[in-house]
Amino acid sequence: MHLELSGPPANPSSAHSFGQRAKGLLSKARSRTAAYFGAKPEEIFFTSGGTEGLNTILRSLKGHVITTAIEHSAVHHTLRASSVELTELPVGLWGAPQPAQVEEAIRPDTAAIVLSAANGETGVKIDLEAMAALCHKRGIPLLIDAVAAIGKEPFTLYPGIASFALSAHKFHGPKGVGLLYLRAPTSFPSLFTGGAQEMGRRAGTENLAGILGLQEALSLLSPQITEKMLALRMYLEQSLTQAIPDTTINGLGPRIANTTNIAFHGVDGETLLMQLDLAGVAVSHGSACSSGSLEPSRVLINMGIDRKRARSSIRFSLSRFNTKSDIDRAVAITAHIVAQLRALSNRCHHS
Amino acid sequence: MHLELSGPPANPSSAHSFGQRAKGLLSKARSRTAAYFGAKPEEIFFTSGGTEGLNTILRSLKGHVITTAIEHSAVHHTLRASSVELTELPVGLWGAPQPAQVEEAIRPDTAAIVLSAANGETGVKIDLEAMAALCHKRGIPLLIDAVAAIGKEPFTLYPGIASFALSAHKFHGPKGVGLLYLRAPTSFPSLFTGGAQEMGRRAGTENLAGILGLQEALSLLSPQITEKMLALRMYLEQSLTQAIPDTTINGLGPRIANTTNIAFHGVDGETLLMQLDLAGVAVSHGSACSSGSLEPSRVLINMGIDRKRARSSIRFSLSRFNTKSDIDRAVAITAHIVAQLRALSNRCHHS
Repeated sequence: MHLELSGPPANPSSAHSFGQRAKGLLSKARSRTAAYFGAKPEEIFFTSGGTEGLNTILRSLKGHVITTAIEHSAVHHTLRASSVELTELPVGLWGAPQPAQVEEAIRPDTAAIVLSAANGETGVKIDLEAMAALCHKRGIPLLIDAVAAIGKEPFTLYPGIASFALSAHKFHGPKGVGLLYLRAPTSFPSLFTGGAQEMGRRAGTENLAGILGLQEALSLLSPQITEKMLALRMYLEQSLTQAIPDTTINGLGPRIANTTNIAFHGVDGETLLMQLDLAGVAVSHGSACSSGSLEPSRVLINMGIDRKRARSSIRFSLSRFNTKSDIDRAVAITAHIVAQLRALSNRCHHS
Repeated sequence: MHLELSGPPANPSSAHSFGQRAKGLLSKARSRTAAYFGAKPEEIFFTSGGTEGLNTILRSLKGHVITTAIEHSAVHHTLRASSVELTELPVGLWGAPQPAQVEEAIRPDTAAIVLSAANGETGVKIDLEAMAALCHKRGIPLLIDAVAAIGKEPFTLYPGIASFALSAHKFHGPKGVGLLYLRAPTSFPSLFTGGAQEMGRRAGTENLAGILGLQEALSLLSPQITEKMLALRMYLEQSLTQAIPDTTINGLGPRIANTTNIAFHGVDGETLLMQLDLAGVAVSHGSACSSGSLEPSRVLINMGIDRKRARSSIRFSLSRFNTKSDIDRAVAITAHIVAQLRALSNRCHHS
């Protein structure tokens, strides 16, 4: 049962029938999205993406905030530019903070705990259930960057989660649309003021086609998709580490189903990325949002990984549309290129 | 020569070839959009729509700001919620402020002049050339809400214009994408922080499909489209006023090509809108962003129009896809309904 546009999307705020039909579609998309998360429709706000959602919840914070130094730029830079007093918990090689660390860092003036459900670069997850239980018990809002997590694994909206943000394009929905969940009656000032759209909390004509795409992409998710990606990722990791000596998977903690971040010691990640790309294998290092920067990944560095290993690391991301033979091919190509680069590097060092 | 996606849009920030092709498309869209306006590519920032663009430029203002009380909600509410000292110029039945009024209102601490190029409800235009010349001469940034204007008539980026915002869906582009022009080296703080997208000024993965749609829709505009819409609008106004006695066009000033706002005296606009809608004619009263409110239009009230006339007013908006026979049909239906409503109203008053 799809929500379908029968033509170009009308403006859901228009009083005429075209507008009212658009409003009906928007309202159904909101209800279905809410039902998917076990939330109330009035707790779902459609946005232009994860960055907008995160900026909306973070910009109004005051007082003491607990986070880490491995958050995505939309959290890291936004919190650092704000007036809050930040505690950035160390995460170490594990790659995620522990609930006990959060508990110790809580102060009487702690206004919020801001964490990603899964890190976008390493895939390492927090123990969301324990973290949410702790925040619920202590009565402190837990604000979750769920951009890297949702679409990869089922997401449980524990009672301790006050807010989360996602991006539709992270699970094959359209770019330019996202969602901000705000548990009622949590209140945050609007980032956009103007019209009364999104229950007066987010002004601007709704991106109806994008919103319907988000809802549809969400409805296609299933535990089977997670299982498939996880099996592929484990196969990738086993094959790569068997085929290539001297590799380390970055992040010791449990990771989401589709992501692996691997150091190929003695190899320059940038060069490896370019060679892989020429051979048709698309990988990343760091997050896409900070690619192009010549610095090694802030996330890896802030996990305590040395610059050399960080520079030799690349991220493989899988989707449910990948196959075992894609992986066999990627592993063979990677093994070949890594061997070549290492041989070249040894020749240079010995000459 | 179209900019085409050969598949789902990749992330322009990704370092691999898919990302780099996406980056190339984004860069071409930016250059072409800049060229369309006679701007530099680095002055064009893609946004999620007009509201985001306007909030971006308005939220950082400090000091004294000159505007009117007939601006769109995205300007009106945002400025009123800010800490600036506002001078709201009266516009009267003309429907737009005069350059001489602006000149008189300028103070030594005037930080900006914020005006819509055309009012979204009445279509009345400001004298943009004179206004821009004045601001240029006085060295005060002129910030233009161009949402209702662009797509209806050619838009000249006069040297006095420091910034303007538009929405793609106002000229048959997609919803959820817009553009903010900021004349270099004008600087404004980002509304979204995070990744380094949009030259570090607007974080968040780019809505590439939307941006290409915006550019394409812009490239299809022409003076012929304006002429066609203007001829249709004049024909609509002549036909309506000939067929229906006791009507007044709201706004005495020159209006953009596609909009007319008409008071049908003695008729309730809300009832007229609903009856027209049932008969297949889609009209609005007020802006879509404030439809659903039972108050008469703030714009008409702030032009000094009495509540009764404001309540009897509706807005007809035309597009280049309308035809003369659409208008003949709309006029016949409107005349019939207005006559019925007036007869009913007279019967009630005399009984």
